[in-house]
Amino acid sequence: MEPKTPSESRTLMTDMVLPSETNPLNNLFGGELLARMDRAASIAARRHSRRITVTASVNHVAFNQAVPVGSVVTVEAAVSRAFRTSMEVYIDVWMEDRFNGEKSKVNEAIYTFVAVDDSGKPTTVPELKPETDLEIQRFEAALRRKQLSLVLAGKMKPKDATELKALFMD
Amino acid sequence: MEPKTPSESRTLMTDMVLPSETNPLNNLFGGELLARMDRAASIAARRHSRRITVTASVNHVAFNQAVPVGSVVTVEAAVSRAFRTSMEVYIDVWMEDRFNGEKSKVNEAIYTFVAVDDSGKPTTVPELKPETDLEIQRFEAALRRKQLSLVLAGKMKPKDATELKALFMD
Amino acid sequence: MEPKTPSESRTLMTDMVLPSETNPLNNLFGGELLARMDRAASIAARRHSRRITVTASVNHVAFNQAVPVGSVVTVEAAVSRAFRTSMEVYIDVWMEDRFNGEKSKVNEAIYTFVAVDDSGKPTTVPELKPETDLEIQRFEAALRRKQLSLVLAGKMKPKDATELKALFMD
Amino acid sequence: MEPKTPSESRTLMTDMVLPSETNPLNNLFGGELLARMDRAASIAARRHSRRITVTASVNHVAFNQAVPVGSVVTVEAAVSRAFRTSMEVYIDVWMEDRFNGEKSKVNEAIYTFVAVDDSGKPTTVPELKPETDLEIQRFEAALRRKQLSLVLAGKMKPKDATELKALFMD
Amino acid sequence: MEPKTPSESRTLMTDMVLPSETNPLNNLFGGELLARMDRAASIAARRHSRRITVTASVNHVAFNQAVPVGSVVTVEAAVSRAFRTSMEVYIDVWMEDRFNGEKSKVNEAIYTFVAVDDSGKPTTVPELKPETDLEIQRFEAALRRKQLSLVLAGKMKPKDATELKALFMD
Amino acid sequence: MEPKTPSESRTLMTDMVLPSETNPLNNLFGGELLARMDRAASIAARRHSRRITVTASVNHVAFNQAVPVGSVVTVEAAVSRAFRTSMEVYIDVWMEDRFNGEKSKVNEAIYTFVAVDDSGKPTTVPELKPETDLEIQRFEAALRRKQLSLVLAGKMKPKDATELKALFMD
Repeated sequence: MEPKTPSESRTLMTDMVLPSETNPLNNLFGGELLARMDRAASIAARRHSRRITVTASVNHVAFNQAVPVGSVVTVEAAVSRAFRTSMEVYIDVWMEDRFNGEKSKVNEAIYTFVAVDDSGKPTTVPELKPETDLEIQRFEAALRRKQLSLVLAGKMKPKDATELKALFMD
Repeated sequence: MEPKTPSESRTLMTDMVLPSETNPLNNLFGGELLARMDRAASIAARRHSRRITVTASVNHVAFNQAVPVGSVVTVEAAVSRAFRTSMEVYIDVWMEDRFNGEKSKVNEAIYTFVAVDDSGKPTTVPELKPETDLEIQRFEAALRRKQLSLVLAGKMKPKDATELKALFMD
Repeated sequence: MEPKTPSESRTLMTDMVLPSETNPLNNLFGGELLARMDRAASIAARRHSRRITVTASVNHVAFNQAVPVGSVVTVEAAVSRAFRTSMEVYIDVWMEDRFNGEKSKVNEAIYTFVAVDDSGKPTTVPELKPETDLEIQRFEAALRRKQLSLVLAGKMKPKDATELKALFMD
Repeated sequence: MEPKTPSESRTLMTDMVLPSETNPLNNLFGGELLARMDRAASIAARRHSRRITVTASVNHVAFNQAVPVGSVVTVEAAVSRAFRTSMEVYIDVWMEDRFNGEKSKVNEAIYTFVAVDDSGKPTTVPELKPETDLEIQRFEAALRRKQLSLVLAGKMKPKDATELKALFMD
Repeated sequence: MEPKTPSESRTLMTDMVLPSETNPLNNLFGGELLARMDRAASIAARRHSRRITVTASVNHVAFNQAVPVGSVVTVEAAVSRAFRTSMEVYIDVWMEDRFNGEKSKVNEAIYTFVAVDDSGKPTTVPELKPETDLEIQRFEAALRRKQLSLVLAGKMKPKDATELKALFMD
Repeated sequence: MEPKTPSESRTLMTDMVLPSETNPLNNLFGGELLARMDRAASIAARRHSRRITVTASVNHVAFNQAVPVGSVVTVEAAVSRAFRTSMEVYIDVWMEDRFNGEKSKVNEAIYTFVAVDDSGKPTTVPELKPETDLEIQRFEAALRRKQLSLVLAGKMKPKDATELKALFMD
């Protein structure tokens, strides 16, 4: 399989915040944004692997800014690193001001997907070849995140997570 | 404000997996489960604080098991630790076998919510007083998770995260 | 088949009232509540029978109290009596005040379900063994309701509905 | 206020059964049909009263026939009797065979609505003047149903429900 | 196949405008109305052909009037002309004033559907036999619209569209 | 107001076809696609005008290709010409093959939007300055379409539609 670049999987999902997706303060529910990000990221993973993809995990996601009803929200997702049968997808979320059109960053999130065949069995995926500085930086950090994930799942001992351990030793 | 126990905020949301929530393998979309967990956890946080609550962050979530269409899924959420204006909510997700009725664990997730007043400004919440062994264990781990969250957000230096650092020193 | 108790089928569905479910007065549509109760009651019937269950009838339901958008609503359903292939499910609906957390009764309803196999043919279900006073009282009243239902459907002559007739003879 | 005929409030809601509204046997959920009937009946009550209307109660509803996904379903609702501030609405539900176009009766249901002003306070509604034989028959039976409803709600003693009592004395 | 009249396919879909279908001015989204009209028109085409029907095209649709949340909207669709395997469906949309009950025309639209068998292959449909003056007028205009549609799709040269050309020659 | 280019309003909405949006052949409903195109085009018009925008009309839309459930669909919308208070938006729809990732054109559509202030009154919008060959070609054709639209609405006599008339005179 030929390696692919992040731009080959980049997915843009622009849509409005509808009244049915809002909380009592008339802002987008966190859970609705999580579901939108999952759909966009899943498409990015499918574009990279050309397989059915299923959500394997969601990394830490912080909600820093309220998104009012009627806002235009853009979810941008691209594969940030490919492992054997899984892919890390990096997601950036932007909101546009209704009046001056200015974009502000609403969220960043990282989801992991597994590529499966029609019976649901994991299958191998192409490598990722990052190009821009930001893509390279996210590609490298992905390994640390994978270790952290294994540690949190109890599948790797903290002391064996060398990349991660280094982080706390500075 | 009187401290509260986890059982005072415990929330049970049992519902079916509808065809409109499923992926091409006829299993529940990861994103839909994230949205359900957000709603249940947000109710738990509201029961603890008696305030409007907004999602502040989602901890690492792993999806270990496919949930087929037609399954009965129970999302159980309870506040696991209260900070000044925020609450950590621990979520357990169970699926019931349609035929023998056996329950199996599908997911665990941890969301954080902030209590706000009607203008959206954070307000203080009651303390949490854990009772059972599991509740105490989750209460204590919450501090480590908060440090990890601050480190990941760049708001705390890894070397100052004493609780977390200890983990990698064993 | 072993008899089962009501607590073995008890189902709690706690969720918020979303803006998309409200009428022009910003209260929950009656029809939405009927649909939620149907899903919760159907899960209770499935837990009792471990079969696919289909709605057979809905008893008289009164809506005594408006439920405003943003409310937390709990639908509690449990099998109240089992017949040969059908089950009566008793449903209690509670609403929580957003500020003081007090629960008030919003509704009571009674649905009947039939257990079916994969081809849709009715199959037998376990007996119900009520335990608490309330469960016993509902179990006994179920017979009167079944007679009423047969009378209303024209499948039993009013004069043969001995239990029911007694009611009007006091 | 001028009396109105049932045809002035008659409401036809024809729509398809979508995959998102079906149970594991691929038939329309009972609860979805209850919600559709509520919307159609509420429009009929609004046409009669020219007021906002809220669901007050649902009479006994029997589900005699499965409605498969993709079916065309027609809900026909018309006011069957008006009381001081409330209206009884009679609902007939028809399904069309996809191939030969034949209509078959799927359901009958009776809902009661209250007309309210913008603050939610009940207001008076016009009388109903039935015209056809079927309309007259439903108009007359409505009084018996109202007594039954009052008896079931504990607001009328069974022995005072003269119309109803007669039914069991034949 | 016996010819059919427009009244044999006439379809009435009356429903409310729900909060989840509205734009920031609290009026029905144009797109939601397009979707409702598609469902109603598709049922009319199915009633005429007794086949599965798929949308082939939408003619020019103008939105002349805002439809506020809570309005009662009636979509009325009937086949206006049948070709070999396709049908033109004419759609009229009415809105009722909440207070005085007056109906006003909101929209007119014309959709075309193709009748297909279970494998998706086009199949022949009955002829249409218009009866009223309006039905005859719509039936005749349908031919001009078909030519316009072929011209716009580049499948007919403008100079060969004799009916249409005449229109510009007056 | 500064003129804007089509790329300043270009909007990409990529999403999956969910089971709840499909017809009995398991393909995307035409009406659902019309609604998605309306949302994407409305965002493009908002980006151009920085105003609330309401759908004014939909041009002829042809559905040439079935879009199966689970497909990834990209709706691409950009303003193609601005008039005084209205904007024509050109929409291209692409579908990706699940396996080889090839994109195919599914649809083209043209919607018109009016920019309004908070009270719903039309307000002026910036001019459009097309850049690429395709953008210039669509910009020029827009005038012919506007004439056609006025003719169809009976607001312009066919013989006065000089641009359009020329088309039939070749």
